[in-house]
Amino acid sequence: MTKVKMALCQMNVVDNKEENLKKASLMIAQSIENNVDFIVLPEMFNCPYSNDKFIEYAEKEKTSETLSKISKLACANKVYILGGSIPEKENDRLYNTSYLFDKNGDIIAKHRKMHLFDIDIKGRMTFKESDVLTAGDDVTVADTEFGKIGIGICYDVRFPELARLMVREGALILFYPGAFNMTTGPAHWEMLFKSRALDNQVYCVGVAPALNEDASYHSYGHSIIASPWGDVIAEASEKESLIISEIDLSEIKKIREELPLLKNKREDLYEIIRK
Amino acid sequence: MTKVKMALCQMNVVDNKEENLKKASLMIAQSIENNVDFIVLPEMFNCPYSNDKFIEYAEKEKTSETLSKISKLACANKVYILGGSIPEKENDRLYNTSYLFDKNGDIIAKHRKMHLFDIDIKGRMTFKESDVLTAGDDVTVADTEFGKIGIGICYDVRFPELARLMVREGALILFYPGAFNMTTGPAHWEMLFKSRALDNQVYCVGVAPALNEDASYHSYGHSIIASPWGDVIAEASEKESLIISEIDLSEIKKIREELPLLKNKREDLYEIIRK
Repeated sequence: MTKVKMALCQMNVVDNKEENLKKASLMIAQSIENNVDFIVLPEMFNCPYSNDKFIEYAEKEKTSETLSKISKLACANKVYILGGSIPEKENDRLYNTSYLFDKNGDIIAKHRKMHLFDIDIKGRMTFKESDVLTAGDDVTVADTEFGKIGIGICYDVRFPELARLMVREGALILFYPGAFNMTTGPAHWEMLFKSRALDNQVYCVGVAPALNEDASYHSYGHSIIASPWGDVIAEASEKESLIISEIDLSEIKKIREELPLLKNKREDLYEIIRK
Repeated sequence: MTKVKMALCQMNVVDNKEENLKKASLMIAQSIENNVDFIVLPEMFNCPYSNDKFIEYAEKEKTSETLSKISKLACANKVYILGGSIPEKENDRLYNTSYLFDKNGDIIAKHRKMHLFDIDIKGRMTFKESDVLTAGDDVTVADTEFGKIGIGICYDVRFPELARLMVREGALILFYPGAFNMTTGPAHWEMLFKSRALDNQVYCVGVAPALNEDASYHSYGHSIIASPWGDVIAEASEKESLIISEIDLSEIKKIREELPLLKNKREDLYEIIRK
């Protein structure tokens, strides 16, 4: 099975958890009608992107209304769902966490955002996740019936080491639910997905919330699939939209034979180590 | 001194070493008229890009006509010259080697291409440097009056580890003399320079031979300077051309403060090690 039909749900996230869960369910239903294998939701799909809302909307994994709902939808429709991310609470700490559900609705992987988004571009974009969130420490690669996939979240895509580590563990698709903004998005979003895909000769998928002009944080949208050759296969605008697109994992083998980057790496001279 | 005025000499390389040295001298003279600080020649600026020509044109460092000429021009004009690359012979081995001359005409660094270009894109581009060339094993960073600079050659730009290692040693500008072709050039050249610059928040400079339709290997040209924000500051077409452009190294500090990627790297979790 080398073909994977994917749905990227670029949903409008509002300041109302019930509304967000309804919208996610609706877009998942629309995806199912298109016979997809794998559905991806955006970063913080149940919660506005702001530090005070992360605190207000946070859920514990065991009792999470959001996770329970997504699990049921995965199981009922026999489909993989990557639950973008949600604010996760464990003891006194909050994490930005992505959960992967298999066709039985079981959580088979979770990724806690490893690189927190602390930037200060004067007069244009300032955000400091580390004021309320704790970073995760794990590289996340999961087994699926299509092969291994890697999961990062948003700012994680900016670090080539993490992509390499996921690919070294066998990931063929790197998913980064993310919410770039109207400053860093136009400047960097597409280039980052294309270059991580090209350097590692994998598919690289970003799924963002739509731009909500009423929100304090303006998401760039532009959910994207980049190919192992560094091409854009599909890309949304900033508006709410559903991307349905099929990828062919056999392309990876072909491109790695033609342009053997991973073989030509000088691992006799350098190596990325985990600590 | 944070401003560096650079000249990128995208010269047409022909199958005649004397003609190539004349052309290089001419473009260096034109650069000098523009009061530049730093002149860069393309990969294999004295030799057509083909394995049999590498053998025919190769020179030993000690007796090299090419290096002697460039050294004199650097000294006479009190200017840094990065001598793209030439086929270098040492004992029985050939290398693709870039030499950096300071204002006294002294060689202050040399880089031997670390990643050899062995690709086989069916019906479009096949080349196997390793049939005649030996790879270098050193990461090359040199001290200049403007700060540290890193040197890679062409295919080396495809490997994010090498860029990271040069930047970790303090390089503020990464130079990659290179000759992409009409297949990989349009697909990847610009993206690679932009993304290496962005990920590492440095300037990234590529200098290529012009497209010579009479040659067996068709260079894509498109000599380029990418900024630490991932923007293209200057870029040539495929035709012979001289780019004169000033960069401001103080931009690096500003961007690293606004978007602290190098600080936000999780070096507690991963690290690139030299072996």
